[in-house]
Amino acid sequence: MSAQVAVIMGSKSDWETMSHACVVLEELGIPYEKKVVSAHRTPDLMFEFAEGAAERGIKVIIAGAGGAAHLPGMVASKTVLPVIGVPVKSAALNGLDSLLSIVQMPGGIPVATVAIGKAGAVNAGLLAAQILGAFDPALSAKVQARRDRIKAEVLESSEELEQVKL
Amino acid sequence: MSAQVAVIMGSKSDWETMSHACVVLEELGIPYEKKVVSAHRTPDLMFEFAEGAAERGIKVIIAGAGGAAHLPGMVASKTVLPVIGVPVKSAALNGLDSLLSIVQMPGGIPVATVAIGKAGAVNAGLLAAQILGAFDPALSAKVQARRDRIKAEVLESSEELEQVKL
Amino acid sequence: MSAQVAVIMGSKSDWETMSHACVVLEELGIPYEKKVVSAHRTPDLMFEFAEGAAERGIKVIIAGAGGAAHLPGMVASKTVLPVIGVPVKSAALNGLDSLLSIVQMPGGIPVATVAIGKAGAVNAGLLAAQILGAFDPALSAKVQARRDRIKAEVLESSEELEQVKL
Amino acid sequence: MSAQVAVIMGSKSDWETMSHACVVLEELGIPYEKKVVSAHRTPDLMFEFAEGAAERGIKVIIAGAGGAAHLPGMVASKTVLPVIGVPVKSAALNGLDSLLSIVQMPGGIPVATVAIGKAGAVNAGLLAAQILGAFDPALSAKVQARRDRIKAEVLESSEELEQVKL
Amino acid sequence: MSAQVAVIMGSKSDWETMSHACVVLEELGIPYEKKVVSAHRTPDLMFEFAEGAAERGIKVIIAGAGGAAHLPGMVASKTVLPVIGVPVKSAALNGLDSLLSIVQMPGGIPVATVAIGKAGAVNAGLLAAQILGAFDPALSAKVQARRDRIKAEVLESSEELEQVKL
Amino acid sequence: MSAQVAVIMGSKSDWETMSHACVVLEELGIPYEKKVVSAHRTPDLMFEFAEGAAERGIKVIIAGAGGAAHLPGMVASKTVLPVIGVPVKSAALNGLDSLLSIVQMPGGIPVATVAIGKAGAVNAGLLAAQILGAFDPALSAKVQARRDRIKAEVLESSEELEQVKL
Amino acid sequence: MSAQVAVIMGSKSDWETMSHACVVLEELGIPYEKKVVSAHRTPDLMFEFAEGAAERGIKVIIAGAGGAAHLPGMVASKTVLPVIGVPVKSAALNGLDSLLSIVQMPGGIPVATVAIGKAGAVNAGLLAAQILGAFDPALSAKVQARRDRIKAEVLESSEELEQVKL
Amino acid sequence: MSAQVAVIMGSKSDWETMSHACVVLEELGIPYEKKVVSAHRTPDLMFEFAEGAAERGIKVIIAGAGGAAHLPGMVASKTVLPVIGVPVKSAALNGLDSLLSIVQMPGGIPVATVAIGKAGAVNAGLLAAQILGAFDPALSAKVQARRDRIKAEVLESSEELEQVKL
Repeated sequence: MSAQVAVIMGSKSDWETMSHACVVLEELGIPYEKKVVSAHRTPDLMFEFAEGAAERGIKVIIAGAGGAAHLPGMVASKTVLPVIGVPVKSAALNGLDSLLSIVQMPGGIPVATVAIGKAGAVNAGLLAAQILGAFDPALSAKVQARRDRIKAEVLESSEELEQVKL
Repeated sequence: MSAQVAVIMGSKSDWETMSHACVVLEELGIPYEKKVVSAHRTPDLMFEFAEGAAERGIKVIIAGAGGAAHLPGMVASKTVLPVIGVPVKSAALNGLDSLLSIVQMPGGIPVATVAIGKAGAVNAGLLAAQILGAFDPALSAKVQARRDRIKAEVLESSEELEQVKL
Repeated sequence: MSAQVAVIMGSKSDWETMSHACVVLEELGIPYEKKVVSAHRTPDLMFEFAEGAAERGIKVIIAGAGGAAHLPGMVASKTVLPVIGVPVKSAALNGLDSLLSIVQMPGGIPVATVAIGKAGAVNAGLLAAQILGAFDPALSAKVQARRDRIKAEVLESSEELEQVKL
Repeated sequence: MSAQVAVIMGSKSDWETMSHACVVLEELGIPYEKKVVSAHRTPDLMFEFAEGAAERGIKVIIAGAGGAAHLPGMVASKTVLPVIGVPVKSAALNGLDSLLSIVQMPGGIPVATVAIGKAGAVNAGLLAAQILGAFDPALSAKVQARRDRIKAEVLESSEELEQVKL
Repeated sequence: MSAQVAVIMGSKSDWETMSHACVVLEELGIPYEKKVVSAHRTPDLMFEFAEGAAERGIKVIIAGAGGAAHLPGMVASKTVLPVIGVPVKSAALNGLDSLLSIVQMPGGIPVATVAIGKAGAVNAGLLAAQILGAFDPALSAKVQARRDRIKAEVLESSEELEQVKL
Repeated sequence: MSAQVAVIMGSKSDWETMSHACVVLEELGIPYEKKVVSAHRTPDLMFEFAEGAAERGIKVIIAGAGGAAHLPGMVASKTVLPVIGVPVKSAALNGLDSLLSIVQMPGGIPVATVAIGKAGAVNAGLLAAQILGAFDPALSAKVQARRDRIKAEVLESSEELEQVKL
Repeated sequence: MSAQVAVIMGSKSDWETMSHACVVLEELGIPYEKKVVSAHRTPDLMFEFAEGAAERGIKVIIAGAGGAAHLPGMVASKTVLPVIGVPVKSAALNGLDSLLSIVQMPGGIPVATVAIGKAGAVNAGLLAAQILGAFDPALSAKVQARRDRIKAEVLESSEELEQVKL
Repeated sequence: MSAQVAVIMGSKSDWETMSHACVVLEELGIPYEKKVVSAHRTPDLMFEFAEGAAERGIKVIIAGAGGAAHLPGMVASKTVLPVIGVPVKSAALNGLDSLLSIVQMPGGIPVATVAIGKAGAVNAGLLAAQILGAFDPALSAKVQARRDRIKAEVLESSEELEQVKL
């Protein structure tokens, strides 16, 4: 089955973060593709990628980048597919620069921004699934089942905690 | 036709911001409903709202809130529909508190966060349209047409600017 | 004796921080319970917990959470017991997000917020004791005695410092 | 009946903010006193005030201050009564300095910090009421009634909003 | 004479800021062109502009943008001409988002970033002049003359100030 | 000879930072005393210390503290001696909280604030020396000599750098 | 009598802030001079000023500047007199840039930094007085008298507040 | 051939960062010189350096500094050559202080600011090359060739990533 979600990132070093999005997609059985596409180092490729995504059957794009993180917003400017932006933690400013560069888009071109770093990447995968799930009850049920499993883990961890002696 | 998008906000004072989302939805012909739902002042209503949304045919929820903005994240915890969070500009910290409270969700429950204030509300409307449009080519075409119109406005404004004498 | 203070946290990983609140409660002989209750992963359980707390004899709730830290505020929205919020240090933003998400509550639902991290957890335990102590002179005297002991330690450490040769 | 809550502030200019705490206390029928006590301009008076508060029957102290806001923390260092700190919005940094100066107390001396500005002052009044209410079911019921009234207002404002035509 | 400097901005509303760059260029007799080019609303035009600039004789590009300010960095990715970025003051975050989006470029594609707002726009004009002046002694002398004039104004304003009576 | 400078700190853990102030004082031959004085844990001692300092011959007070750093400002409120505040780097917010708590004093009670951490402590020692030196040419000459020595070190390090091969 | 304090500022527009320092000096009868000296627009004059200050009898320098506020630190690098830095509120970042540019000096060259804006300017005047007062008991007594007067004003304002009816 | 670019830094400890600028210059065959020049510890040398640079044939100056980073701006005030400022990551505030001290220059004296730390240093080297390249097609072609090489690396890394199995 052809990819429904494209996971792109500005640099191979973002893979440590962005792999968490792919793990979620895999876990939920959503076909995806993954690429390094750099807004600044491969701008033409980025535009080609964004222009062709819908035609290739992609429904949702997940784009991760750090620092002056222009990838999610620029891809969003070239497609009307929903684009999810993951702010990757940056060396000096801990991802605050990444977050503001991604989320503060001007009216007209939205980017669906999630949290900085690993939690954001996990949630990008889940958000893509929830978007697809809005039109796919079976997928939606899988997302719900994942939540139920995690809820059970929380309850279990609480029981363990209640037994801890100081 | 029943509402496909629900636009909720933590307080009626958020309407000044959130109306911009509704204007976009109206412009694109997307049926929507709008409500005040407060995470802190009507928590049970919020849960009821979130639990019943999918069943009522809602496909995307847009939630705006300011300060310790818990509404988007809490609604997201109670539904697997995609939830878009709009950080409303706050009195003391200009919406930085709203932004961080909405976007920094833990792994497991995503909120698709957009920019602080009016630009964010406009983009929430557009993002909802793009999510629906991923499965509705006609709507997707409308979003594209809106972009083309805005592009023409930019070109026109550039021509005007080029004529300005200092 | 049944618990007077409930110490809850959004994730078991918060225990490293929140244990410091429990140590203080134990030291002062205040009966307490401790649980993992997640705003986002176990929202219904959170509401049940908050609704039932007063009835079970709980007088003060201490809630710790990190990132988009909604637990203290949401629990506060479901009980009129005083709720103390502990911002847990977060991975990317060092707890600034946790702090703002907890402290910037809208008018109507207060959360008594303490410092980020360990110092905050210690102080959450002490604040709970001081709240109980306002109606319990014996407990209040214990808090005072703890302060006197710490004061003596400061004086001792000063004497040591005065002897240090560079 | 003698005052149960003392509302103090670092400067008369803080009254615009702190009056909101007093309005809540008045509304709930809680006897209170109000004073200007400046950490930096009347340090001895501040210590006298803090030392004598418990003896005079005060159960909770609310202290508002802005900038390098030392009043709440210093009062807290001289009494074991619970002290609620209200960060007043400051001229240059919008109260971020006030917030950090109040909330980041070292382990040993807690200050129950609320939001910056008016919302924080309202909540300081409510938090004082909730602390007293933990031992006074009638007061606790009044706080609950206030919440119910506000909930009704939210529902009403939602109905109004639902009727708004764009 | 054909334009040596291109002044572009993301939106016509940026003209209020960016006009200050043009005033400086005019004052120093440097031929320039000015356009609205939006990274997000006219991405293809932006690329065309950037690709063709050097060929048309442009030596320096000044690009102003606000919020998630991608224009300077994206233009820089498509040309090896020096690009000066002016962070325009934004509605919610006062240009801190604009600054970080412009300055925090990854290694490989530099943007010469100046101050937020009017002072930055003035300095963008001067920096362009200084870059051109490094190879044009007459222009360099004009920049120096402008500095000498401003120095004289400072001295004069100091003399006035010394006479002020309180 | 009796101490001219008092170096105080809120906790013995601040010694790692504050020792750098003492090293400078020692190096310049300025008699000093050093103590742990905690604003929050030994408030009365702090007041006694501040009240008695001038009488004991102290000319300048150096006070280091972290987090909600009230020590410098409170000491300053109890003496008209110049007080130098050193913001100690804090666990969560890297000393930004310490800095704002110390520097943002209200009009009426100044604290001479220096940089966060070690550099600040070194400079506190030097500032004390420069204050004393304004009335003591020999001391002033020693400070100048220290600067000359450091200047020579810079020149030497530059010569070394110029030889480095990549 | 020749000036003991020099009050300098980077631009005449800083006078609105810096006049508050002069008012204090005048009030305390301290002879002072005031000048516009710009680090960036009159760098040589700045060095001349700093080099000659001690010789002319100046004992303390107060320097106010905004944005990339280099004046206090650069003057400090050219004199061993104590230099007090006043961060003037800046257009975009409210003086946070001014504060960090002034206070974060490297080890070796201290600047005695006070609060942002008017309160800082008042305190710069007082700090200069306290520095001079360390060697001038009459001046020191005047500073104390000013504090006593302000204390009386606080007490009076408290009495007024206590009478306010809501 | 005599140096066209001067790379200066405030302290030898900045070499770890600034060496990355020199590596780029070397790679592109641009003759350069490198020195330690400290704004605060060698202010006269700094002025001499800046005054003499143009005459010695320098076309572009790269200046790196951390904390209250005055070096780039002060050098810029003494020359009309373009000055590139590199904010070095600082101990407490991660280079945010360095960035604001460098970029927020007042109108009149520009500094071309690049990113904090290593990426900024690399880009300073490239920006210098691009400035020189605006008048040197061969150099400009080398910069373009470097970009092409990096683009190829991105494509290769993408191919590798596409093969990764989770």
